[in-house]
Amino acid sequence: MVKKKKFIAVIGGSQCSSQEVKLAEAVGRELARQGAILVCGGLGGIMEATCKGASAEGGTTIGILPGDNRHAANSYVQIPIVTGIGYARNVIVVKSAQAVIAIGGNYGTLSEISHALQNNIPVIGLNTWSLSRKGQPDNSIIPAQNPTEAVDKALNLATS
Amino acid sequence: MVKKKKFIAVIGGSQCSSQEVKLAEAVGRELARQGAILVCGGLGGIMEATCKGASAEGGTTIGILPGDNRHAANSYVQIPIVTGIGYARNVIVVKSAQAVIAIGGNYGTLSEISHALQNNIPVIGLNTWSLSRKGQPDNSIIPAQNPTEAVDKALNLATS
Amino acid sequence: MVKKKKFIAVIGGSQCSSQEVKLAEAVGRELARQGAILVCGGLGGIMEATCKGASAEGGTTIGILPGDNRHAANSYVQIPIVTGIGYARNVIVVKSAQAVIAIGGNYGTLSEISHALQNNIPVIGLNTWSLSRKGQPDNSIIPAQNPTEAVDKALNLATS
Amino acid sequence: MVKKKKFIAVIGGSQCSSQEVKLAEAVGRELARQGAILVCGGLGGIMEATCKGASAEGGTTIGILPGDNRHAANSYVQIPIVTGIGYARNVIVVKSAQAVIAIGGNYGTLSEISHALQNNIPVIGLNTWSLSRKGQPDNSIIPAQNPTEAVDKALNLATS
Repeated sequence: MVKKKKFIAVIGGSQCSSQEVKLAEAVGRELARQGAILVCGGLGGIMEATCKGASAEGGTTIGILPGDNRHAANSYVQIPIVTGIGYARNVIVVKSAQAVIAIGGNYGTLSEISHALQNNIPVIGLNTWSLSRKGQPDNSIIPAQNPTEAVDKALNLATS
Repeated sequence: MVKKKKFIAVIGGSQCSSQEVKLAEAVGRELARQGAILVCGGLGGIMEATCKGASAEGGTTIGILPGDNRHAANSYVQIPIVTGIGYARNVIVVKSAQAVIAIGGNYGTLSEISHALQNNIPVIGLNTWSLSRKGQPDNSIIPAQNPTEAVDKALNLATS
Repeated sequence: MVKKKKFIAVIGGSQCSSQEVKLAEAVGRELARQGAILVCGGLGGIMEATCKGASAEGGTTIGILPGDNRHAANSYVQIPIVTGIGYARNVIVVKSAQAVIAIGGNYGTLSEISHALQNNIPVIGLNTWSLSRKGQPDNSIIPAQNPTEAVDKALNLATS
Repeated sequence: MVKKKKFIAVIGGSQCSSQEVKLAEAVGRELARQGAILVCGGLGGIMEATCKGASAEGGTTIGILPGDNRHAANSYVQIPIVTGIGYARNVIVVKSAQAVIAIGGNYGTLSEISHALQNNIPVIGLNTWSLSRKGQPDNSIIPAQNPTEAVDKALNLATS
């Protein structure tokens, strides 16, 4: 039954480096190999690369779109969710997951990291944001050194 | 590829009659038999009955939840989308579908019918609301006499 | 103190007849005369006419905008709320009010009526939608014959 | 005309230190003195202190609430906006402002900072989060040393 599978969000920019594309695709492949369902924002860049990787291994891919057009989803999204609520949809991307893997990313990704941490959803980071507040480091983002480690950590922490 | 499949929303109350439960379950079965993916609000009543029917025929079921808890989904939802935006999620239920089947329903269902019509998403009605404005009937809700007719009409109109 | 004032939403189409414009402007004037604060969707048509009327009498006008641009508000909106969530903002228009006056309107207005009724927020209708479900009339929309009656009824019912 | 006034959001935690309460109240006072309209999340802590300060100087206060209950607003909110969309309302708090002042804060505040920066809305920080990505400092949050400097910078940058 699909519901027993784990839902993992992968977040990152629609603009990203070619190295990040490789990381994202590897994360997608590994998630699918381990039987997880991929949740993402449904657009290009990191989102597309991760969906491509997951699809190549027969995984399921969900794209939670900001706009009104299902055809805006990248071509590897199997389940487009059409929100029409703009970047407020970032909240839904993370809430629909039991753990989040962040790869690089811009301010949109940072908003997703923040919403995840606010909701006690674990965040694993691959070369992404780091945080400090009032001058003290905040180590809530769990670092990973490579895609396999990121996926292993995400699946271990995806217990809620 | 799943994306080529048609996405059909089934909407109706979490409170409903036993006759409506039967209609909903039959709609779910027929959608799954014809290869469509079911989108709904993920909770009880009509939503649960439709998911049960679709699951019995091996279909895919998506539940777009109003709250923060994935475990609030009925037990036949395979893909819970956790929005946390309350009944504003009604907009997402209909926008994520290419056609909508309404069964009975209360004001929440009426809001979904309205959002669908506002977005030019076809609405098929099974014993549901009827509308008139400024004293003139509005016949935008397409009537169906039974579950099979509702599903056939929805799939024929789900072209966008 | 402003908070003790009553918040009344006026809803209706951005496209409307010249007769409806007159009704809306009269509703806005009367709301302001009676000290209520106007909530609306912030755009043209009924929304603009009502804001114009309220402003002419020194009232306060709030426009809850669907898009990202505060300058999309009509020129009589004093307090633009920029939601960026599209027509999901219809829910916020009605929830921010203690009673709702509907004038004419299309499917967007119908969605607002539905969300209001779902939330037990009274709806007063001036030549607007009428509803029936499963063949039985639903008389939840309280009719008014003219702007003054609509405002009086709205203020009397705005107790929550 | 109110619309010509500047709208400034003040963001920060519902839990905060007594020193932060003083900062927030001073920011609220200064915003009101300079004729700005205060936008906030409408609840306690930093939000309440800022509204208290603004009210004491005759300013206007808007509280954009996450829940369904207008009475959840702190007692200094004059204009409660009832969203019912949970913490997705954070997006609306920042989009409704032309500049944002962050005081301390937790992950919810960080999500608001992120959404503001994503939308090119200037963020002024008073002892709040600092950011770096991929090991490089991101200096997008403009530091201020005291409430007056924060308000002056916010008003100077609130040009859109």
